[in-house]
Amino acid sequence: MSAEVKMTELKARLLEISDLNGAASVLSWDQSTYMPPGGGPARSRQSALLGRLAHERITAPEIGRLLDELESYRESLPYDHDDAALLRVTRRTYDQRIRIPAPFMGELYEHIGNLFDTWTRARPANDFGMVRDGLAKTLDYSRRFAEYFPHQHIADPLIDLSDYGMTAESVRAVFDELRAELVPLVQAITSQPPADNSFLRRYFPQDAQLAFGVEAIKDFGYDFNRGRQDLTHHPFMTRFSAGDIRITTRVDEHFLTDALFSTLHEAGHALYEQGIDVGYDGLPLGGGTSAGVHESQSRTWENIVGRSRAFWMHYYPGLQAAFPEQLGDVSLDAFYRAINKVERSLIRVDADEVTYNLHVMIRFGLELDLLEGKLPIDDLPEAWRARYTSDLGITPPDDKDGVLQDVHWYGGLIGGAFQGYTIGNLMSAQFYEAALRAHPEIEAEIGQGKFDTLRTWATENIYRWGSKFTANELMERVTGGPLQVAPLIRYLRGKYGELYSV
Amino acid sequence: MSAEVKMTELKARLLEISDLNGAASVLSWDQSTYMPPGGGPARSRQSALLGRLAHERITAPEIGRLLDELESYRESLPYDHDDAALLRVTRRTYDQRIRIPAPFMGELYEHIGNLFDTWTRARPANDFGMVRDGLAKTLDYSRRFAEYFPHQHIADPLIDLSDYGMTAESVRAVFDELRAELVPLVQAITSQPPADNSFLRRYFPQDAQLAFGVEAIKDFGYDFNRGRQDLTHHPFMTRFSAGDIRITTRVDEHFLTDALFSTLHEAGHALYEQGIDVGYDGLPLGGGTSAGVHESQSRTWENIVGRSRAFWMHYYPGLQAAFPEQLGDVSLDAFYRAINKVERSLIRVDADEVTYNLHVMIRFGLELDLLEGKLPIDDLPEAWRARYTSDLGITPPDDKDGVLQDVHWYGGLIGGAFQGYTIGNLMSAQFYEAALRAHPEIEAEIGQGKFDTLRTWATENIYRWGSKFTANELMERVTGGPLQVAPLIRYLRGKYGELYSV
Repeated sequence: MSAEVKMTELKARLLEISDLNGAASVLSWDQSTYMPPGGGPARSRQSALLGRLAHERITAPEIGRLLDELESYRESLPYDHDDAALLRVTRRTYDQRIRIPAPFMGELYEHIGNLFDTWTRARPANDFGMVRDGLAKTLDYSRRFAEYFPHQHIADPLIDLSDYGMTAESVRAVFDELRAELVPLVQAITSQPPADNSFLRRYFPQDAQLAFGVEAIKDFGYDFNRGRQDLTHHPFMTRFSAGDIRITTRVDEHFLTDALFSTLHEAGHALYEQGIDVGYDGLPLGGGTSAGVHESQSRTWENIVGRSRAFWMHYYPGLQAAFPEQLGDVSLDAFYRAINKVERSLIRVDADEVTYNLHVMIRFGLELDLLEGKLPIDDLPEAWRARYTSDLGITPPDDKDGVLQDVHWYGGLIGGAFQGYTIGNLMSAQFYEAALRAHPEIEAEIGQGKFDTLRTWATENIYRWGSKFTANELMERVTGGPLQVAPLIRYLRGKYGELYSV
Repeated sequence: MSAEVKMTELKARLLEISDLNGAASVLSWDQSTYMPPGGGPARSRQSALLGRLAHERITAPEIGRLLDELESYRESLPYDHDDAALLRVTRRTYDQRIRIPAPFMGELYEHIGNLFDTWTRARPANDFGMVRDGLAKTLDYSRRFAEYFPHQHIADPLIDLSDYGMTAESVRAVFDELRAELVPLVQAITSQPPADNSFLRRYFPQDAQLAFGVEAIKDFGYDFNRGRQDLTHHPFMTRFSAGDIRITTRVDEHFLTDALFSTLHEAGHALYEQGIDVGYDGLPLGGGTSAGVHESQSRTWENIVGRSRAFWMHYYPGLQAAFPEQLGDVSLDAFYRAINKVERSLIRVDADEVTYNLHVMIRFGLELDLLEGKLPIDDLPEAWRARYTSDLGITPPDDKDGVLQDVHWYGGLIGGAFQGYTIGNLMSAQFYEAALRAHPEIEAEIGQGKFDTLRTWATENIYRWGSKFTANELMERVTGGPLQVAPLIRYLRGKYGELYSV
């Protein structure tokens, strides 16, 4: 068989795996959006089955054989060749998955499906007890999962899974540097008079909220012919194929910014996926390269664009027109200050840009403690409260807005779930500086509701490549250096220094 | 291995097949409800893959071996034992499927997915040309499918698939007897002054239409904890598992009865599925036993209940309250006459009870002609128009409401798709007579908006058994004899004789 024939066989096998994963994503999307309560048990089983079938296929001996046989072909190619990248990424996934026994993955998928189902009821009921045993089991699964891999820290294999190339140690180093900058900044800002955002809590009817968000993300370039938006408890973006990349949001009719900014956020994720070279669809290259890079794009569109003064100079009149009674008496300046209000708060996804990363670091720290065996599950709700009290100066009154807040531990493994958010924030500032160096006109265009230059730059430099380059490679290619803390700090100091005169 | 161990192994294998089919149904439901246009190509591929995997599993040599080894166990059991029924039904499916090569099924599923996707665009565009080649391919697939089976008539294997135990000849015999009764009845009725139903075409806002239908089917006993309703071009019921049995409808804001009666209809299908013994879930017994029996239940709830005077004596005040401006000037009697207006019309699903079966017979006849090779695809649109002109006395002005009207040929095989509708109508009258013999109070209860006696009778006698008994066995068990034409004719003569004084 020629290399060409072998590549064709490999791609056919990978397409089948991609289709199983796509089907599993449809089942999962439905579970979060429309599935009636009675559907839970069978759905968990169905998802587990698809997960197991995909796992069996990626770890099939034929994949290993094809990869071995194609090794010399890969070596003959330039590093940047698509086939070389495909073989690298497939090899990485294969080597990873081959370590995990298929029955373990089957059990794990089924367990996660069940726990997620329980969590959707436990959170509104404010009842940690409902998920306690399930979460203990997840911790056990997470440790067992990690133990299949060689590692320095027990969290390393889990971190590597979402943010390839990073470790507990490297993340901790970056986080320590960032925290040292953030803590005094938060301190300085919160010693100033707080911004008034009370008008954001007026009554804003759901349909008008959704309609405004949809118009904004259409302007960003999100293609509704290849996507749609639905309502879920926890907003997310999901890819079924290049032609079907969906987002979700949630609406609080008494808090304007929840749906709005989660819409811009998930649209950022979706712009990344919709921007990937369609030739990669159905292959391991056809998806974002890491949690961090993905988050860098959601945060770019949500925050750097969506919470900028320039953006609202263009969009605020339209928002006022949509909500004349609610916002007629609120000036652009007051609105801009309100949506950028810095405060010590409980909910990560609603947190401002300055305190947000403190929320993430709490979770990252708890994950390490859980995995290291320092923190028993029974002590987790209290540990959560204690960390919020010490790090953010605020104590959650209940578990609903405490330890039950995020879907991650109830819909996946413990470990590796959160660091990507802060890595992503760091990357977003660093990428955006590179974009402005190339196209200083981007900021003026945002003020006109135009996003083509920014989106095209991001597509050419980041999106189109899918998983062809690792996060570290992308940073080097796009910004000329490794991940840095400084750009985010420069961005925050510039924006919030002006807002709060600090 | 003991029989018990073998049964456990067989059931585990069947559960996996059921889960693959359930997952495929989720994908198909999503394709009809929410999928954006761009999702089509990958979705067809994903559905084809799941179909192929299920097919591989039901035809696996291990299934054949287990069935062979369990043959003596089955013979040792009473006919009515659940295991005996499971082994019978599994054997029938296995023997059927084993004849069809897996690659053929894969191709077929992918083709059907693509054609369905095209049809959803071709129908609104009124463009038969868009689906012409695809439909020709479907006809070819349908003939090839049938040729895998021994048969007298080329349509027999396809009919057997939906209505086990029936053939082109036996269906034709029943249809001929029915037609001989219907034609003079339609003639007599349509020579009377027509009922006025013009007020049904006033403006009825979508939300209020849907809300009324939902309340009615809740009263029927449709359990929304194990189901939901969404909007599609073509209403349908689908089962993902015992806990997730969904229905869809479509709304015409300028025609009150489209959404209303399709809601009652699909709820009838869903009551059947929700009533099946949950112990059968995940097994081939866990589903309705034939297209005809299924349709008998949808038509019972839609027509015998939903279009009865008793039903509207209870519900009409509520409908008037929901639409005071539209129906305030319409008496109960006028409304009852309007929803039972007999007329020569174009759309099968909107047709009255008397002419409905003429619509079905046209399609059944065209299917036989197509399969026999008498009718080329290119002549089909004209043949459709000619048959409507001759049999119903009305000529479709376009293909949209002609040959493109029904999803069946564009979302499945040609042959076996339609006879079940009329078989079902016959059965519904025959079953209902049996229900009234057992519980004469049912009609009075309907007049009070109470359906427990009817639903419980149907559950105990029909629903709970799932596919344990064949359609013919059920008819014998429940009504004491084989399928008859007389009960439907008695029902129609009684109801419409009174309405039209004929």
